Amino acid sequence: MNINDVLELVSKERDAVEQNLLENLDSDVEMVNKVASYVFESGGKRLRPVFLILSALMCGYKGERSINISGVVEYIHTATLLHDDVIDGALYRRGKKSANNIFGNDITVLCGDFLYSRAFMNLVKDGDSKIQMILAVAARTMSEGEVFQLIKTADVKITMDDYLKIINSKTAVLFSSCCEIGAILGGKSEEHQNALKEFGKKLGIAFQMADDILDYLGDPEKTGKKPGTDLNEGKITLPVITLLENATPQEQKRVRNIIVDESATDENLNYILELMHRYEVKTKSEKVVDTYIQEAKQNLKIFDKSIYNDALDFLADYMVARDR
Amino acid sequence: MNINDVLELVSKERDAVEQNLLENLDSDVEMVNKVASYVFESGGKRLRPVFLILSALMCGYKGERSINISGVVEYIHTATLLHDDVIDGALYRRGKKSANNIFGNDITVLCGDFLYSRAFMNLVKDGDSKIQMILAVAARTMSEGEVFQLIKTADVKITMDDYLKIINSKTAVLFSSCCEIGAILGGKSEEHQNALKEFGKKLGIAFQMADDILDYLGDPEKTGKKPGTDLNEGKITLPVITLLENATPQEQKRVRNIIVDESATDENLNYILELMHRYEVKTKSEKVVDTYIQEAKQNLKIFDKSIYNDALDFLADYMVARDR
Repeated sequence: MNINDVLELVSKERDAVEQNLLENLDSDVEMVNKVASYVFESGGKRLRPVFLILSALMCGYKGERSINISGVVEYIHTATLLHDDVIDGALYRRGKKSANNIFGNDITVLCGDFLYSRAFMNLVKDGDSKIQMILAVAARTMSEGEVFQLIKTADVKITMDDYLKIINSKTAVLFSSCCEIGAILGGKSEEHQNALKEFGKKLGIAFQMADDILDYLGDPEKTGKKPGTDLNEGKITLPVITLLENATPQEQKRVRNIIVDESATDENLNYILELMHRYEVKTKSEKVVDTYIQEAKQNLKIFDKSIYNDALDFLADYMVARDR
Repeated sequence: MNINDVLELVSKERDAVEQNLLENLDSDVEMVNKVASYVFESGGKRLRPVFLILSALMCGYKGERSINISGVVEYIHTATLLHDDVIDGALYRRGKKSANNIFGNDITVLCGDFLYSRAFMNLVKDGDSKIQMILAVAARTMSEGEVFQLIKTADVKITMDDYLKIINSKTAVLFSSCCEIGAILGGKSEEHQNALKEFGKKLGIAFQMADDILDYLGDPEKTGKKPGTDLNEGKITLPVITLLENATPQEQKRVRNIIVDESATDENLNYILELMHRYEVKTKSEKVVDTYIQEAKQNLKIFDKSIYNDALDFLADYMVARDR
């Protein structure tokens, strides 16, 4: 099985989600549709919908609610991206100019709000209060997680627990919600719902960790980004935490100073990257990621064997693959 | 009947709403609670809850759902204020420093998102899909209205219809929703629901118009604001539209130039204020407001006489009273 097999397996549903995303941009204020379609037409892998739909299919669901709810999830996800890009002053997203870069911060914040409310409308239409609550709580947790991340900016006393709380909130909760909703749509037991919820949570954590590793230690030719963006923004992530756990007290002190002073010069970045290589931070961090992926996949075992089960198992590994 | 009589009439419910607003600030990220409680403890007249509760009482509703839903409405309203203050770079709100002024734009945007999602959670708990949809649509309309207002900034070709669309979206829709929800809670007919919806819409429009008049023509000692903030922000509102309808072509040209060049110097502002006095813009604008209020109140006539009916009738006038 490869990624194309997986995408092929849900190609009809993926097309339907794309259509759903665009057809709900029905504002009579043209600018709102313009900004939102710009964002959706800029691509995005729609990973969350794929997990939701595969989970639902694995659980025997054959209806069309998964399309509408996938659209809701993608609207919520996109609203958070729009607001995050405003907050971070990001100029690019997915290799294209960010919405705030083109349309300005003010319109971008409001279009995020539009997508939140549009998501809510479609959830009301769906009418399932359990699913509504899962996604309302996910949206709440994501906003809280972003605030917590801001508070912890350049805080060198951040613990692994703090970091896990941040990435669970900002990334894992929505993946977790998608997979859990798949089980609910399929009418599966509480045990199965919890297993998929846990699967999504663990893989969401691993996914964010893999992303955080790439930020420092990815191949710039593949990621298309200069290493160390997170250092610039004072975001202390898995590679730095791993480095601080392994370096000598003197090295720790210098790394902490670089972070606190927000002096991410090339020289300082190179110093940190050199230390990361010396202490094999990449290998050590990737081991943590692998553990989460293995734990995630354990949760698939209580489901009957099926092509969808295989696809989810494959995707879990693919999400954190080194060469994506 | 005076304003204190009205507030006394719903004092139990108003206390319950205040409690609801604070007790739902249950984030495990302390900063989120801190920002939100700062905002709620800074006051605010809670006009929307008062309209919702009085409407419900007039329609014979005796339960407690009106408290929770009032809290939802106030959360949505506050989320829009937080985002608007970030967008406008407002330094003050209700005579105190704005949240963005104290906590920064980034945290303020995210706390707005937190309030939206918290509102959504409480609406899911309530479980009434008609009410859920009314408020989801209201939130959508408000974000669209703000975008439309931004697009129309400093656009001197703005029409009265554009202006009505803006104030209907940003202000009237939420008042309208509150009053309509009151009728739904009371189990009243579609006709009664529509009457209260129309009542809220008309008074919301009048309320925003009265506010826009005060911005240019209010007594600074009472409003606590320097006149012409809207001119500074390029917001073209009822007084300017009325002025442009009455001034000579040459005067119109100069007013338009001032707006387009965004040159709201004291000299230019005084020129505009002088013209407004000459053409009796205040009297003319207030006549428009009065018409909306009279039309609003017509809608109360199909309801049985009651103290709540009287209170709503009184409040409609009070909302736009010159000396508030």
